[in-house]
Amino acid sequence: VTDRASPRTPVENAELAVLLEVAGTPKPGNVDRRRDHPDLRFEHFLAGAVGARRGLALAPDRPVGEAFERAVEGMSHQRGGNTQFGALLVLVPLVRAAAGGDLTPAGVERVVADTTVEDAVSFYRAFEHVDVAVGDPPAGLDELDVRRGSAVEPTLRDRALTLGDVMALSADVDGVAAEWTDGFERTFAAAEWLLADEGPVGDRASHAFLRLLAAEVDTFVVKTADEERASEATRRAQAVLDGEADAEELAAEFVERGINPGTTADLTAGALFVALERGLDV
Amino acid sequence: VTDRASPRTPVENAELAVLLEVAGTPKPGNVDRRRDHPDLRFEHFLAGAVGARRGLALAPDRPVGEAFERAVEGMSHQRGGNTQFGALLVLVPLVRAAAGGDLTPAGVERVVADTTVEDAVSFYRAFEHVDVAVGDPPAGLDELDVRRGSAVEPTLRDRALTLGDVMALSADVDGVAAEWTDGFERTFAAAEWLLADEGPVGDRASHAFLRLLAAEVDTFVVKTADEERASEATRRAQAVLDGEADAEELAAEFVERGINPGTTADLTAGALFVALERGLDV
Repeated sequence: VTDRASPRTPVENAELAVLLEVAGTPKPGNVDRRRDHPDLRFEHFLAGAVGARRGLALAPDRPVGEAFERAVEGMSHQRGGNTQFGALLVLVPLVRAAAGGDLTPAGVERVVADTTVEDAVSFYRAFEHVDVAVGDPPAGLDELDVRRGSAVEPTLRDRALTLGDVMALSADVDGVAAEWTDGFERTFAAAEWLLADEGPVGDRASHAFLRLLAAEVDTFVVKTADEERASEATRRAQAVLDGEADAEELAAEFVERGINPGTTADLTAGALFVALERGLDV
Repeated sequence: VTDRASPRTPVENAELAVLLEVAGTPKPGNVDRRRDHPDLRFEHFLAGAVGARRGLALAPDRPVGEAFERAVEGMSHQRGGNTQFGALLVLVPLVRAAAGGDLTPAGVERVVADTTVEDAVSFYRAFEHVDVAVGDPPAGLDELDVRRGSAVEPTLRDRALTLGDVMALSADVDGVAAEWTDGFERTFAAAEWLLADEGPVGDRASHAFLRLLAAEVDTFVVKTADEERASEATRRAQAVLDGEADAEELAAEFVERGINPGTTADLTAGALFVALERGLDV
């Protein structure tokens, strides 16, 4: 690994990315170094990150779906519930691309293109390990509702749907699925912001989070609150960037009101991973 | 692992223990979830923990000294300097005892008794990866000064000193070495406090830290400040426990004055590991 820009392996950087993401503060609406939700606390994210590593460690050599399902299983051994499901869904293909020596949009597009029906089956199985907040499936796709877990397996096999196909079906309503179909465009862009920024990594993570949120509506807020609050979150993140609002106050208010831009946090974790791989110092 | 009290492996619990330790707040004088030192910040501990795992992963099957040296090497890839040297020195023999199915004072005493001259050589080599604050060696032991690193190897071989022997020589002046010679008595006691306590793990870690500090002078404060401030730290921790002082205020004051009870934090990490192995829920 002597020609790598990072002193850590891709698997180590993936675990560190989820830890740096949750530590970064303020990230309005999310658990961070200074804020807990009532039943979802900082230590749940620490345990989730440590547990997820057993799956992340499979990403270089085993099928993407298997690595993801094992990561979610490991993540689930804490009392907070879903801590990093979306972040792991961003990270697993990125780790695989990095381990293959091509952590680029083209490299991760190839990982997505190479996914199989088995990967899709594993993906659905992952939902059995933890309660994930999801919306109703797109019209006509009830049979593929993730809440059905392993029961979807026959449908996946009948239709020969790969994990890449499954993600493409949700790309319009899920910010993580959209990354899977767009070569992780937003993730790679935010990684460059992190590298170009100054100061401690936790501050950079906060800035990148705000820029991502200001640029696009958070689909997790749409699912767990509604469209209106999702638009509000984006508008108010922009106000912070414009110097018209205070990030700490917004963080307190969003936690209070249950506005939780979780998808933006997932992309921030992915961006931290890419930046660490490209030499971001901690 | 179905009969284990923990859903995590010993290696996973060791990494989680160092993360929970640094997150626990307030721990007067130490970096914690709410406090940084000027050049030693929370994220350095996150990177240190992730990096250390490559060495912790060796503790079940490889020599103790080799596992420790690799853990320190991995820990060192961040800009904060020494984050968890002492904690890893506590954890490596505990992980080995746990992996062998006997995480008891007798079990870890056996691990210590089985250490070799090679382990001692690896231990000295670990000091070359990171700057560790140490005092002068005990009288007559200049040749064994840890600051000499690998240069001590011939002396260790001439005198046939094992790592257990080396620890015994420093037991009077170093709180971690004292644990190595006392069957990790304080570590196991604090693990029981953690299990009997109530509330979030971060709060329990703070209480255990204060009890350990109130009970015995912190040898890291002796080395990095002086005996007087070490005694003061112990006295004032007791005042917090007696309800006569505020832990948050004490934390702010100690960080300001550079009073850093690092050895007490190391034992807290060890206690968290034992408690996690015994079923402490996160």
